[in-house]
Amino acid sequence: MLNTIPSDVRVVEVGPRDGLQNEKTILDQQLKVDFIHQLVEAGLKDVEATSFVRADKIPQMGDAVHLFDDVKARVDISKNKLICLVPNLKGLENAIQAGVRDIAVFTATSEEFNKKNINATIDESLERISAVCEEAKKHGLGIRGYISTVFGCPYEGKTSLKTMMKLSEKLFDFGAYEVSLGDTIGVANPVQVKDVARELLTNFSLDKFSLHMHDTRGTALANVLSGLDEGFTSFDSSAGGLGGCPYAAGATGNLATEDLIYMLHSMGIKTGVNLDKLSEASTFILSKLGRKSSSKYLLAWQSKRN
Amino acid sequence: MLNTIPSDVRVVEVGPRDGLQNEKTILDQQLKVDFIHQLVEAGLKDVEATSFVRADKIPQMGDAVHLFDDVKARVDISKNKLICLVPNLKGLENAIQAGVRDIAVFTATSEEFNKKNINATIDESLERISAVCEEAKKHGLGIRGYISTVFGCPYEGKTSLKTMMKLSEKLFDFGAYEVSLGDTIGVANPVQVKDVARELLTNFSLDKFSLHMHDTRGTALANVLSGLDEGFTSFDSSAGGLGGCPYAAGATGNLATEDLIYMLHSMGIKTGVNLDKLSEASTFILSKLGRKSSSKYLLAWQSKRN
Repeated sequence: MLNTIPSDVRVVEVGPRDGLQNEKTILDQQLKVDFIHQLVEAGLKDVEATSFVRADKIPQMGDAVHLFDDVKARVDISKNKLICLVPNLKGLENAIQAGVRDIAVFTATSEEFNKKNINATIDESLERISAVCEEAKKHGLGIRGYISTVFGCPYEGKTSLKTMMKLSEKLFDFGAYEVSLGDTIGVANPVQVKDVARELLTNFSLDKFSLHMHDTRGTALANVLSGLDEGFTSFDSSAGGLGGCPYAAGATGNLATEDLIYMLHSMGIKTGVNLDKLSEASTFILSKLGRKSSSKYLLAWQSKRN
Repeated sequence: MLNTIPSDVRVVEVGPRDGLQNEKTILDQQLKVDFIHQLVEAGLKDVEATSFVRADKIPQMGDAVHLFDDVKARVDISKNKLICLVPNLKGLENAIQAGVRDIAVFTATSEEFNKKNINATIDESLERISAVCEEAKKHGLGIRGYISTVFGCPYEGKTSLKTMMKLSEKLFDFGAYEVSLGDTIGVANPVQVKDVARELLTNFSLDKFSLHMHDTRGTALANVLSGLDEGFTSFDSSAGGLGGCPYAAGATGNLATEDLIYMLHSMGIKTGVNLDKLSEASTFILSKLGRKSSSKYLLAWQSKRN
């Protein structure tokens, strides 16, 4: 193990969208823009900024159009990927009007999860994504694909590697530059990560994928380590560990960017991220939410600073 | 990586001693005995029970003699290792009178840490340990050795692998059946764990060692994974993640036994521990301390049960 580790790893920050979307405290738009700006200033070049969804469905993201206007004024979106989630053509239209350059589309390996999450079968979700991607390509947008429940589903349990392969192929066919594989409920283990990597390698190169691990049971970094060892060089994470587990209230969700970056740096892997600046950004937004960090690194950092 | 993982791993539970010793809430002796009993019932066969130190130094351990009397009445100490920390001959005398069968002795790879922790140089600590072990062997006690600050020291920073090797050799010479290597401040990384393993292998077999990782920065399970891959098959951990980091108030400390066991089981590795019973035990003692779990697995388990 660890005989060949990469010299550089790319970290995709999902805090402002995936992290904040389930937070009950609706933050002022300006706070979210400040947060995104601070994350970019900390060196994160791929940041999920918001989601172009119906405000009545996800109130925290209801200000997407105006928020993105403000973001554009403060962040150079030609040099940084400010990714916005787009569920359908209506969302895409709004995103294009707001000047978005990079979008994300999403599906899942589980029929049941897709039905409950987006009220569509897997095939129906692919039809929607296909239409969105076709239009997005006309406007020259970058497309990131998400596949949820790759490592397990809250409704179906074990999910299929074959479905993961089929969905990955479709997403690349539709024009995605990258596919992010999600451990939506935080049940992955390092052996499973190895198995997923070996399966992907039968048809793809791992540099087309990112691992999106959840830390619900504390195993996210061990899974990242297994992924690194297999050849993944891109990982999603959320500043301060923002974003609880929607399937188990009180439990933690996303892997914290601080924990990820600390481990990578301590192993001699470069990320381009300034860990102190990142910790400042997370501390700022957590204070506005009135929440304690679920990042262990950040807790240690905060306790040393006080 | 992970081409050869062990079928079985031994987990050494340190919660009742290492976990509780820095807790300000002094628990009734009976609660601690109940806790130890529950841990053994959950399948943990190696449990650090208490410390035979001066009550004015560590008030939480001030009841060691009476506590061990009670423990003996409820736990079969011929079938389970109930390990008690012994700092000197006076402590050993008390432990023997109480009927203790297994002791732990401790030193560190850092001169400065030893001076601040036990007011002795490394060589002076070895003299003390030598005297304790000589006497302990006369009484047929099992001896476990601890080496702290193997992966870094709060005062000296980087510590020496050469010192780790020398101390390990001494502890085995004194009669230790096992040496536990501590990441006292939670700064280890997976590459360093590999380097430590490779160094140990130049003179020892890894089955004579246990890894005692701290989760202060969230990296403990990744370090365990690296250790597993190198050939370690014994790990120390603390129920519910009991025990903060004494060098950074507010930060977390010990690796949580629940997180460790969950990862091992999910990888198909057997431990003999019932995770539900363990979670019950931790929930019980955390409620008595009025503390929230620092184990992410336990948080998820508690949220599902509620």
